[in-house]
Amino acid sequence: MRFTSEQRLDDGVLERDFTLGEVPGVLWTPGPATAPLILVGHNGGLHKRLPRLVARARHYAAEYGFAVAAIDAPGHGDRPRSAVDERLRGDLRRAMAAGEPVDDIVDALVLPLVEAAVPEWRTTLDALLSLPEIAGPVGYEGMAATGIRLAVVEPRVSAAVLFGQGLVPGSLREEAREVTIPLQLLLQWDDEGMERQPVLDLFDAFGTREKMLHANLGGHAGTPWFEVDDGARFFARHLT
Amino acid sequence: MRFTSEQRLDDGVLERDFTLGEVPGVLWTPGPATAPLILVGHNGGLHKRLPRLVARARHYAAEYGFAVAAIDAPGHGDRPRSAVDERLRGDLRRAMAAGEPVDDIVDALVLPLVEAAVPEWRTTLDALLSLPEIAGPVGYEGMAATGIRLAVVEPRVSAAVLFGQGLVPGSLREEAREVTIPLQLLLQWDDEGMERQPVLDLFDAFGTREKMLHANLGGHAGTPWFEVDDGARFFARHLT
Repeated sequence: MRFTSEQRLDDGVLERDFTLGEVPGVLWTPGPATAPLILVGHNGGLHKRLPRLVARARHYAAEYGFAVAAIDAPGHGDRPRSAVDERLRGDLRRAMAAGEPVDDIVDALVLPLVEAAVPEWRTTLDALLSLPEIAGPVGYEGMAATGIRLAVVEPRVSAAVLFGQGLVPGSLREEAREVTIPLQLLLQWDDEGMERQPVLDLFDAFGTREKMLHANLGGHAGTPWFEVDDGARFFARHLT
Repeated sequence: MRFTSEQRLDDGVLERDFTLGEVPGVLWTPGPATAPLILVGHNGGLHKRLPRLVARARHYAAEYGFAVAAIDAPGHGDRPRSAVDERLRGDLRRAMAAGEPVDDIVDALVLPLVEAAVPEWRTTLDALLSLPEIAGPVGYEGMAATGIRLAVVEPRVSAAVLFGQGLVPGSLREEAREVTIPLQLLLQWDDEGMERQPVLDLFDAFGTREKMLHANLGGHAGTPWFEVDDGARFFARHLT
């Protein structure tokens, strides 16, 4: 892990860019004391410096004392785009607009991404937990598909806040039954492109005994800001 | 309004029994400063001193500085039982056990209760808001049926936390469309006697633009304690 830039922000948070092999990331840490860690994921072609992701990360660090890390998933952010992914995203948009089945496209697009992203998160976790200012335990916040696999295979991740409105292949919906860590699942009631019922079914499928569903009005990107505080308190219950 | 007993509890909260006409109630106040008010409702034959209701009320007062009031609804708690209600509750239990339709029984049992309880809440509110230590604004926490009517007819109630798993007559489900105050609806995912879908439909029906659904695992009475803190923060956002 190599830090490539370092900046002390006006809220006192130390923000550092890093690279780990070919994976670029950002680490936000609250101060000199050791802190639990939240991994913040993103998908759908988004960037690790997406403004609403950065705002959440800084709030977690400044207000709640968590260390927070984001990395660009394969084909995302600062990493080279994949022509196959671009074609599949086009196919997906066309199929959704035409009301055609999308299961095969979702499998082809999302499963390889999860297969590639989860090992990178685990390697990043090795590096982050070797830093003296990060103590663990570890939480994950992000899209459900990556979160499901990470929760199943990575025992150091002990709580998760998942955005329910992502594309989740059927095999990962089945894998959700193996998830046993506490989790909070967010549902946007009026998502423009996604149905509610699959999110409710996913909530039902999770194997954990402590799970909460938080549904709010509004579209895909309209999760209310107070859910960041709810997420922080959820992580505080389980990570501190 | 006549106070009949007064006790300073070990958490600093002042607990006072009162009567207002034939309605007995309890008021918990946090201290000398004026405070917003939360009305805590209950139903199903329960008592205003139900331990989990008292625990919530004291927590709201001691930790968040709210004044909290509970009254016994007609036929509940310390008030005379109604033979008609008792018979209807028996009919309801038998119909539910036999898997028969319950809509007519729910209408006959719950509508008269709501019709009688809501004016009592409003009179209680008049009396409570005349006390120097209570400033308003006012929130309601309790069963959905009473909360829907109260939210529609009582403009002083400006936010509500509702337990979704109660019996809600069809006409009140329709009335929910007229509710425009912010609300938080609680759903117990594994309720022994109630279905999930009517609670999800009710959430959808509410006419307000700021509504949240919080679903948790567990049975009818198993709402996790942290929902009390979530409720308090919801009320703090809207009442202070």
